[in-house]
Amino acid sequence: MMEAQKLRIPGPTPVPPQVMEAMQRPMIPHRGDEFRRLHLGMIEKLREILRTSGDVFVIPGSGSLGWEAAIVNTLSHGDEVVAFVTGDFGVRFATVAERFGLTVQRVDVEPGHAARPELVRDALTRYPNARAVLYTHNETSTGVTNPLSEIAPIVRDHGGLLFVDAVSSAGAIPIATNEWGIDVLLTGSQKGWMCPPGLAMIAVSQRALREGTRAGFPRAFLDFTDWKTSTAKGDTPATAPLTHFFALDAACDLILDEGMDARAKRHAQAAAETRASLEAGGFSLLADSDVASDTVTAARPPGDMSANELVRTVRERYDIEVAAGQGPLSDSIIRIGHMGWFSRDDIARTAAAVVACAAVFAE
Amino acid sequence: MMEAQKLRIPGPTPVPPQVMEAMQRPMIPHRGDEFRRLHLGMIEKLREILRTSGDVFVIPGSGSLGWEAAIVNTLSHGDEVVAFVTGDFGVRFATVAERFGLTVQRVDVEPGHAARPELVRDALTRYPNARAVLYTHNETSTGVTNPLSEIAPIVRDHGGLLFVDAVSSAGAIPIATNEWGIDVLLTGSQKGWMCPPGLAMIAVSQRALREGTRAGFPRAFLDFTDWKTSTAKGDTPATAPLTHFFALDAACDLILDEGMDARAKRHAQAAAETRASLEAGGFSLLADSDVASDTVTAARPPGDMSANELVRTVRERYDIEVAAGQGPLSDSIIRIGHMGWFSRDDIARTAAAVVACAAVFAE
Repeated sequence: MMEAQKLRIPGPTPVPPQVMEAMQRPMIPHRGDEFRRLHLGMIEKLREILRTSGDVFVIPGSGSLGWEAAIVNTLSHGDEVVAFVTGDFGVRFATVAERFGLTVQRVDVEPGHAARPELVRDALTRYPNARAVLYTHNETSTGVTNPLSEIAPIVRDHGGLLFVDAVSSAGAIPIATNEWGIDVLLTGSQKGWMCPPGLAMIAVSQRALREGTRAGFPRAFLDFTDWKTSTAKGDTPATAPLTHFFALDAACDLILDEGMDARAKRHAQAAAETRASLEAGGFSLLADSDVASDTVTAARPPGDMSANELVRTVRERYDIEVAAGQGPLSDSIIRIGHMGWFSRDDIARTAAAVVACAAVFAE
Repeated sequence: MMEAQKLRIPGPTPVPPQVMEAMQRPMIPHRGDEFRRLHLGMIEKLREILRTSGDVFVIPGSGSLGWEAAIVNTLSHGDEVVAFVTGDFGVRFATVAERFGLTVQRVDVEPGHAARPELVRDALTRYPNARAVLYTHNETSTGVTNPLSEIAPIVRDHGGLLFVDAVSSAGAIPIATNEWGIDVLLTGSQKGWMCPPGLAMIAVSQRALREGTRAGFPRAFLDFTDWKTSTAKGDTPATAPLTHFFALDAACDLILDEGMDARAKRHAQAAAETRASLEAGGFSLLADSDVASDTVTAARPPGDMSANELVRTVRERYDIEVAAGQGPLSDSIIRIGHMGWFSRDDIARTAAAVVACAAVFAE
């Protein structure tokens, strides 16, 4: 069995012992006071971490349920949206929008580049009637952190709703949900939050809630109004995944104890060290340097090396699990996750293992 | 902290140590071979337990996501369905159908009674064009097991799809999914399956999958075609909740080791003993005797006793957690769960505690 610390893919990420221990707690009634106290306390912690005074819902499922939740709660069939696509997760968000019959204006960016303010401004000028903007904060498939704080005011000026996929950023990279005016921020438990997959955490603005009254999509499980009514009392409309609630509550404590500033610094340092090691080992970094992600690094191995073969070799020789690429980049890049729970040593060992295996190949 | 064995509500239910231990397994890549083997193996076990050669999907979420999955994958806005409502969970299934704009013909049955074959036959004669039947196998709110095996052929003759909510039956009460011709059988991880809440397990017939091609509802996360394609390879369209997969796989082993026949017998015995104790203590059982559930017993306390006060007293005096009623029955019945992991002693102690507390009240 793999040691937790040797999993260095960009999610799911290792679960720290405090969170593992929390998950050993026996079941409790999911409609009782003990649960309600836990839930309400956890919501406050999430608000603090996500810097929002608005609503936060913790929904059983996966991060990708968040894409759907944003859409069905605020929009109607045929509505126009602008989807900025900087990689595979951007594609998936846009695809969900297409599945729901939205008119999706896709703005594609080459892998490694960001959806920058000027691009966003131009696109929104072209689509003045767009009802919402779909934006990936951290694109897990390319290791790019899109400049959310810079594009948020542009979207506000335009007037559309801002939906942000923060699955691989929130909990690790600071986000000022309120201040930036994000309407729906969605994340998942299994990356920066250091929990197993199984939860979508969704922060929702007052404006997004108001849009619900005219949104045309039918909805039940994901209905924000239901979640708001229940959450206010500490309840959940659907049976809460208790073990995950225990885990996330413990993880929030770890995050708040560390502090989001210290946490951001730790992630930035790990990312910088990973990039430096890979570059020294002959890898070329995929992301533009000013938008390189603090949670995941993507790089092309030296020469014509197969990323999948490199991943396999790192696994066999070092028992460390890193990831190859996704979609069109599947065999041409490797990706290293440095998010959530890790020490400086964990990260140094991982980068060194990848570089050493690449050197063997090159011989 | 409550001992696991003292939680005797009708779900979430106690999680046995083998399942707890499985949940301590560190994260693994959710797109790797180790995960795929686990997933494919688990699907085979689920098929055996649910007696189906058809598709089974394990979806992150909760059992109630299954109601929605059945609807959006097979029907279209305005379609007529017949919903047999024998309690609060029947109401909820019907409500989801209404939310999705279906024409819902609700057939209500008084609490404690079942939706019996003659009722089903009459209703389906009245609604020859109904595209689907919504049926609760075990109504958790009243302790009634509806006669699924008897009504299934009637629905088959009628020609509509048969959707079965088996959240509080599957894994504990035998179900012959294939033989009975169930089109969508939905269950959740936290009752008979002895796992924490967080998964919807859904068995889908070939016919239901075919209906998907003309179903008009937009869908993404819940799309059966996506689940079928991914599951065939051992993958999942959304990130799998690994911890829950580890848990459910271990729980399936426990179920298969015990054997579904022995398991059914153990549940029937616990139910019979609970009913006998409660009746001897002056309680009146809610369910008609021939449809009384093997997984949950509902009963009115003697006199005008408040169910909520009785539940509180049992908690304070015995540290055992039983449940009051739901909806209109909230303060007039108590409910005892005997599903999944329990010994004969656990159940005897629970019934004795409830009876003893009621006797104190009566004084």
